[in-house]
Amino acid sequence: MTMNKRFSLIGTGRIGWALSRLLTDLGWTIDRVDDISEYQLKAYQKHFSSCFTPKHAPSQTACLLICIRDDSFHELIRDLQKKPEWNTPHIIHTSGFHKAEILSPLRTAFQSEIHSFHPMISVIETNPDQGKKLLKKAWWALSGDNPSWMQNMASAWGLQSFLLPDDKKDFYHASAVMTANLIIGILRGAEATASLAGISTEDYEKIFLPLVDSVIDHIHQSGLHKALGGPIVRKDYNLLEREKTALKEAGLTDEYAMYDLLSRYLIQKMSKN
Amino acid sequence: MTMNKRFSLIGTGRIGWALSRLLTDLGWTIDRVDDISEYQLKAYQKHFSSCFTPKHAPSQTACLLICIRDDSFHELIRDLQKKPEWNTPHIIHTSGFHKAEILSPLRTAFQSEIHSFHPMISVIETNPDQGKKLLKKAWWALSGDNPSWMQNMASAWGLQSFLLPDDKKDFYHASAVMTANLIIGILRGAEATASLAGISTEDYEKIFLPLVDSVIDHIHQSGLHKALGGPIVRKDYNLLEREKTALKEAGLTDEYAMYDLLSRYLIQKMSKN
Repeated sequence: MTMNKRFSLIGTGRIGWALSRLLTDLGWTIDRVDDISEYQLKAYQKHFSSCFTPKHAPSQTACLLICIRDDSFHELIRDLQKKPEWNTPHIIHTSGFHKAEILSPLRTAFQSEIHSFHPMISVIETNPDQGKKLLKKAWWALSGDNPSWMQNMASAWGLQSFLLPDDKKDFYHASAVMTANLIIGILRGAEATASLAGISTEDYEKIFLPLVDSVIDHIHQSGLHKALGGPIVRKDYNLLEREKTALKEAGLTDEYAMYDLLSRYLIQKMSKN
Repeated sequence: MTMNKRFSLIGTGRIGWALSRLLTDLGWTIDRVDDISEYQLKAYQKHFSSCFTPKHAPSQTACLLICIRDDSFHELIRDLQKKPEWNTPHIIHTSGFHKAEILSPLRTAFQSEIHSFHPMISVIETNPDQGKKLLKKAWWALSGDNPSWMQNMASAWGLQSFLLPDDKKDFYHASAVMTANLIIGILRGAEATASLAGISTEDYEKIFLPLVDSVIDHIHQSGLHKALGGPIVRKDYNLLEREKTALKEAGLTDEYAMYDLLSRYLIQKMSKN
């Protein structure tokens, strides 16, 4: 694939920074950048000052990257239709939640192909080098108008990717939220429970993180379906009932609900495989 | 502390093997061993054949280790009281669920001190070298009759340990089950959800495990209270409601319940710190 290695960017948050580091390290240059936060925009322009395209005709920008909050899409798309200077042949957003199809007003306005590239990874800091590393570890879900263009582009950027049906993104992203966020909810519940045994937040992390690591290692080595140790896999239902009773009687209502729901769910899953 | 480096063991499961490897590598020898499974017992005796005490008087055994299933304790304790040949000055069980106090009939029968040593780690295979490594990574919760003896012993065995009030073990162990088991419940729920996006079990592991790793890394580096990225920390409640609706309408009842319970729990926790 031959193309101008030039991109434009809207949204200078964590993903915008990380992706800019990745692309500029591959020799891409930045044509245009914008952000609703003047402060963030200036910080980005300063950091990437040596990476802007020296001179260019706007029509040669290969793609526009949209890396903004999920709840800002409708407003941005409405505004962009009135700004032909942002026109590019390919528009990519990096939201896991939104479908590529959300960009369809721009397909009409700009005659662009529209795409969604989503990295399945958690990036919590605006550190471009760290961010780039995480983006390289991630699998990227691609959906949108032009599958072969998307796959070639992801490959040119050195990314692991797979095609996802655009209309299935709801389940894809719900699964990502469960995987990345809800396990933290469980650990917060476990932390609250441990505090009743006199274990502080600091001690919870110190004492229980090696346990978390061992469980994640088991998943890597033996697979998710064989990683379970402890009372559920031993079918020690008496123990489970006693611990649920202890949580309920101590007034740990939410923690009881987690324990009850998820232990029953695992028992049910075990009976199926 | 001077003592005979000799132990006896009841229970030749994963923890019994791992602890035997750890102790025999430190020059301890095995006086007696027993298991309700003849098959497991023979495998253990064969593997550790060079580690048995050549000749001994039973009274010199430093301690008896009880590494059995939580639901076998009452029967074992009843039986042991009739077997004075197992008498030792110190008895240790490795259950996370049971209190040291469960051994009190043996304190009376044998005049022994009774203790609980629990490693906060998941060991899912009977591989003594792997098991030993995990036991060394774990923090061990100690409770029972003689705190200074327990701490000296854990230290002599090269283990990280802390004292836990014996009567708080319910909350301690419930927290361990949540930490080690319920996160797997969440991941199984995420896997079921991803399957509706056409992502197979194998692909779920491939695509989502780097995400899990990134989240666990964030916890290690930034702490549990600062590891959250994504829609919950952005307070994008509209997104959360839309995904819950998608789960509900697809008939993913349990997955909906997890998503609902834990996202609300995290929102509530965030408002507090």
